[in-house]
Amino acid sequence: MNFITFTESHLRNFTYNVFKKMGCSDEHATLATDVLVRSDLRGIDSHGVARLSGYVRLWEKNRINAKPNIKIVHETPTTATIDGDAGLGLVVAPFAMKVAIEKAEKYGSGWVSVKNSNHFGIAGYHALMAVEKDMIGISMTNASPLVAPTYANERLLGTNPMCYAFPAGKYPPVIVDMATSAAANGKLEIAQRANKPVPDGWVQDKNGESSIDPNELKNGGSLLPLGSDKDHGSHKGYGLSATVDILSAVLSGANYGPWVPPFVAFLEPSANPVGEGLGHFLGAMRVDGFRPAEDFKNHLDNWVERFKNAQTIDPNKKVIIPGEPEHEFEQERKVSGIPLIDVVVNDLNELALKLGIQGLS
Amino acid sequence: MNFITFTESHLRNFTYNVFKKMGCSDEHATLATDVLVRSDLRGIDSHGVARLSGYVRLWEKNRINAKPNIKIVHETPTTATIDGDAGLGLVVAPFAMKVAIEKAEKYGSGWVSVKNSNHFGIAGYHALMAVEKDMIGISMTNASPLVAPTYANERLLGTNPMCYAFPAGKYPPVIVDMATSAAANGKLEIAQRANKPVPDGWVQDKNGESSIDPNELKNGGSLLPLGSDKDHGSHKGYGLSATVDILSAVLSGANYGPWVPPFVAFLEPSANPVGEGLGHFLGAMRVDGFRPAEDFKNHLDNWVERFKNAQTIDPNKKVIIPGEPEHEFEQERKVSGIPLIDVVVNDLNELALKLGIQGLS
Repeated sequence: MNFITFTESHLRNFTYNVFKKMGCSDEHATLATDVLVRSDLRGIDSHGVARLSGYVRLWEKNRINAKPNIKIVHETPTTATIDGDAGLGLVVAPFAMKVAIEKAEKYGSGWVSVKNSNHFGIAGYHALMAVEKDMIGISMTNASPLVAPTYANERLLGTNPMCYAFPAGKYPPVIVDMATSAAANGKLEIAQRANKPVPDGWVQDKNGESSIDPNELKNGGSLLPLGSDKDHGSHKGYGLSATVDILSAVLSGANYGPWVPPFVAFLEPSANPVGEGLGHFLGAMRVDGFRPAEDFKNHLDNWVERFKNAQTIDPNKKVIIPGEPEHEFEQERKVSGIPLIDVVVNDLNELALKLGIQGLS
Repeated sequence: MNFITFTESHLRNFTYNVFKKMGCSDEHATLATDVLVRSDLRGIDSHGVARLSGYVRLWEKNRINAKPNIKIVHETPTTATIDGDAGLGLVVAPFAMKVAIEKAEKYGSGWVSVKNSNHFGIAGYHALMAVEKDMIGISMTNASPLVAPTYANERLLGTNPMCYAFPAGKYPPVIVDMATSAAANGKLEIAQRANKPVPDGWVQDKNGESSIDPNELKNGGSLLPLGSDKDHGSHKGYGLSATVDILSAVLSGANYGPWVPPFVAFLEPSANPVGEGLGHFLGAMRVDGFRPAEDFKNHLDNWVERFKNAQTIDPNKKVIIPGEPEHEFEQERKVSGIPLIDVVVNDLNELALKLGIQGLS
């Protein structure tokens, strides 16, 4: 595996040109680019520009609308449902989070459920929008069914991530951003490429037997919920994933469970959908709706320090503060650039050729 | 192990008398009784009347105030911080949830962070208060430090439960109510009484080695976060537990992390607290703030049916809908009574003797 390193601005220009070629407005192309490149900057390579040709393929199949009319279809002072008009989740979700933030500015908190959307990139991007306003940010999305609930050998849930983000004082924001499955699908893909087994407890085969083969999903297998098996709390991972599904889709009118449209263009969406597109859930709460923001930040700094200084099993390994590794990646990659593996670079060059724009390299 | 079965009303009378003897008002004694007995009714025996003498011991040490002046100390239209005045969490949390519900009635949603409280019983009780009003209920609490974050061999977090509850139509509410540790402490206590090993991945010994000894906690060991180890996502369980801790305590001004006061009376609280008591976080969102309640309930019923009818690995085991087993327990125990193990019955009879009230049996 070879890596080629690109500057942030080069990657931004390329990505912007792709979205423009799809027909996105300047504003949407810039925003969608920011969501993807920020993912690469933060070291979450699986959710960055590596997904660009996937979005394009969905657009080619008319499953992504490049010129969406995103609108509020139902609301109270602090809640709203948004119809994403089949737009890129990369622009629909920030629109929704803006609505949540505006409501929070006025009333203390704001909560938005979204239907008729598509994949929204990293959950952390949207939650961080609230953090920048001294708010607590919450973001979730449902996703294509890959995960079997406890006892099932059917894929009924996505890896349905949830994210909670908190503003700190002298430390970076604390950001819990996690798939509710034992492992995210991206980790499985890494093992597939490297042709390596995965730990027991990540996947089961089509008969529901635990497996270490990263290719099980292609053979009718499923990912497992966080907790892996009943003894270790897989019903909790399943419950969290169900929570994300209900808040994102049952509440908004999007598809839920096995009806969520697949992210890959070669699989067709359900012929009998129960809603529109896929769903997200976004929330913002003003910290100073509970206590002065400075008090909160000082105590969160104290929390962070106590956990950073915890006694560890291996003296070479420290307790990790959620969000800190991504923050460190971002500082470093802003300076030294973003490494992409050659497979991704080739894929993006082919995409450029197809779209008639300048290649990445 | 022998069980003695009591009627709901007998158990309620006994529990009410204990709280009255502590000096609680009629209203508080009735409410605290309802929280505990409802836990037993719902089959969550670890959090019901079995804990009664624990509350009394904390009251004897002046760590629980039986006559609290619970009040809002900070608020916006949809957020509030409540000072529980060292009262029973069993009465402080319902007070806070009522505030959240009132705000949601007016503005669509309500969010309350609570400081200076004590153990609040089952999280599901409080979330269900919102469900009864056709709202989504959220409840969390931090708790005595028993859990080591990933890589640590110190107990820095409680089993910090989170609960999300949703009103359905023809089905019981969907209630995800879970400790964010691999196993709740109650499960460990059951293994201790039965003198049986626990599954690998629940606890580690004082050196951070995985252990199957349920007594490890007495010897300096720790519970493990949901996910059990890094490979299986223990950083996610740790992240969820951190989220509960921050929302419940850093946001309200309660103690967090290792500073949370112990639930057991024989351990003293920190001499240098970072806040007051322990903390909760409660929320309510009107379903019809997002879409008509009937639409939501119909789709949640459809969700439930799809999951109930999922293909399973073992044809004798069905996929469990979160909250359904507890609902079935409640229906059954309301009729056939509540079985208590003899150890608990003896403990409660001794408690009665000490307080000078009539025994349980």
